[in-house]
Amino acid sequence: MCHRIDVSTRAAIEVIDITDPLDARVDDFRDLNSVDRRPDLPALPGGRVGKALVIAEGVLVAQRMIASRFAPHAFFGVDRRLAELSDDVVEQPGGVPFYRASAEVMAEVIGFHLNRGVLAAARRPEALSVSEVIESARTIAVLEGVNDHENIGSIFRNAAGLEVDAVIFGAGCADPLYRRCVRVSMGHALLVPFAKSDNWPGDLELLRENGFRTIALTPGEGSVPLRDAVTGPSDPSSDPSCSSSDSSCSSSDSSCSSSDVERKLAFLVGAEGPGLKEHTMRSCDVRAHIPMSRGTDSLNVATAAAVAFYEALSR
Amino acid sequence: MCHRIDVSTRAAIEVIDITDPLDARVDDFRDLNSVDRRPDLPALPGGRVGKALVIAEGVLVAQRMIASRFAPHAFFGVDRRLAELSDDVVEQPGGVPFYRASAEVMAEVIGFHLNRGVLAAARRPEALSVSEVIESARTIAVLEGVNDHENIGSIFRNAAGLEVDAVIFGAGCADPLYRRCVRVSMGHALLVPFAKSDNWPGDLELLRENGFRTIALTPGEGSVPLRDAVTGPSDPSSDPSCSSSDSSCSSSDSSCSSSDVERKLAFLVGAEGPGLKEHTMRSCDVRAHIPMSRGTDSLNVATAAAVAFYEALSR
Repeated sequence: MCHRIDVSTRAAIEVIDITDPLDARVDDFRDLNSVDRRPDLPALPGGRVGKALVIAEGVLVAQRMIASRFAPHAFFGVDRRLAELSDDVVEQPGGVPFYRASAEVMAEVIGFHLNRGVLAAARRPEALSVSEVIESARTIAVLEGVNDHENIGSIFRNAAGLEVDAVIFGAGCADPLYRRCVRVSMGHALLVPFAKSDNWPGDLELLRENGFRTIALTPGEGSVPLRDAVTGPSDPSSDPSCSSSDSSCSSSDSSCSSSDVERKLAFLVGAEGPGLKEHTMRSCDVRAHIPMSRGTDSLNVATAAAVAFYEALSR
Repeated sequence: MCHRIDVSTRAAIEVIDITDPLDARVDDFRDLNSVDRRPDLPALPGGRVGKALVIAEGVLVAQRMIASRFAPHAFFGVDRRLAELSDDVVEQPGGVPFYRASAEVMAEVIGFHLNRGVLAAARRPEALSVSEVIESARTIAVLEGVNDHENIGSIFRNAAGLEVDAVIFGAGCADPLYRRCVRVSMGHALLVPFAKSDNWPGDLELLRENGFRTIALTPGEGSVPLRDAVTGPSDPSSDPSCSSSDSSCSSSDSSCSSSDVERKLAFLVGAEGPGLKEHTMRSCDVRAHIPMSRGTDSLNVATAAAVAFYEALSR
């Protein structure tokens, strides 16, 4: 077989100099700190739809955006960052404009001085469904009420670092594609598949049907040590995720093997302070705590999640 | 025995209203964001000594300061926070002034608007020595080159949450008593004992003499999985921390028992990016990595430390 490479779709980066801060060509990067005008808002006050862009900051995160399903359609940066990014951008299909400006013009457009010197913008592709992101996943994180962008970003970073395959957003979570979240995640919010649950907490049943043991992380009463929850009973008769009436639980389903190593795990975490809702925890297979942590403010939610991810990875 | 409680040293809080932002009585809270004038600077440019104060922000952190060895000598806050703090302050010996002001006057004094509405200031007590903080410690964290205040704060928070008894600062670390560090630590920087090493990395030998297994966290080659490092060989003949020539390693020394549970552990972490120095790692008993983490930016240094603390706690 002979694959013809169409070099015309691999055009080099197109450099366009911007000297006027009001130039409409950089509107996708304008007023990034504005609460109601920033271009990465999916929805605007009054029900209007925002530009719904995703903004990557800095060379590393822009490179990860290029490698993700969020294909950047434009860059905005200083000359030095153009040089650092150009090798990556050349590999993109189609001509992608790099709007080049001084640091001062950039600051006027975006509304603050950006140390990282370069931004990339992508349109949000169609959202993935819960079923899609869990299909081949072994370990997943499930968030409820986590409304802090930095915590969500850290959870993505920890997920990428500790082999977590997907993140599910239950009710009350902040937008994982907000710029600050993408930055704190080091770009991993663009690489780790995620989905928003449209049926919460009903989707927990979907997870169980797909062989996941659902583990609610909580310091509260009635919880078992995390390690016990991860390596806990795999006997189908005692494990609700492996009931014999469960069609997903055939003998060939590795999630129902007696091996801890093969079990599929879903870790649920709630916001610092309120934690998971009682109703949500009741829908889970088991409640688990991190041993000996003192009080509810003892660990950040992303750190608690990392410990759970590590435990799953180390079984 | 009869203990006489001197009620005169338990004076109630003394409320002093501040209406002039230039009032010298609140100088201990002035220009908190200033690089070279902030009152919590231990040293000033040119070798001059700063005020060397410690500043706690918010009710929770101020309460923890009150409970710590850093006794606050003054508070500065809005009326609402005075009410929230007064129960704690009354328990302090001596009369402690609470400088009460409007949010606007506070903002003028400290240089920014403080959402948390209250500050506490303490003078730095005499520093603890490495020997003092490790004396009864079982698990400790040892930092090298960690120069980010938020990371240090997070490490203190994780240490408190996961039963780590002390933190040792090797070369190149930032000031753990800087306001931002204390805030991110949720006040635990004031509660978890710490010491700065004056003999780095020579003090690693002191740790080993005191029965600690020194574990260098590194993703690099030649490292064993973290769990193996924690539960690794306890046979004195194969464990350098338990050599027979080590006077601290008597048969009554629990660190040399065959039980993993009783072993004393010191986890060394370096800054994100550069990590620990090769020379430092060579002085450690073992190098350990967190399994499967991808690349050097995969986990934040405080998160990596938390995973190690958890592993120590769960053995």
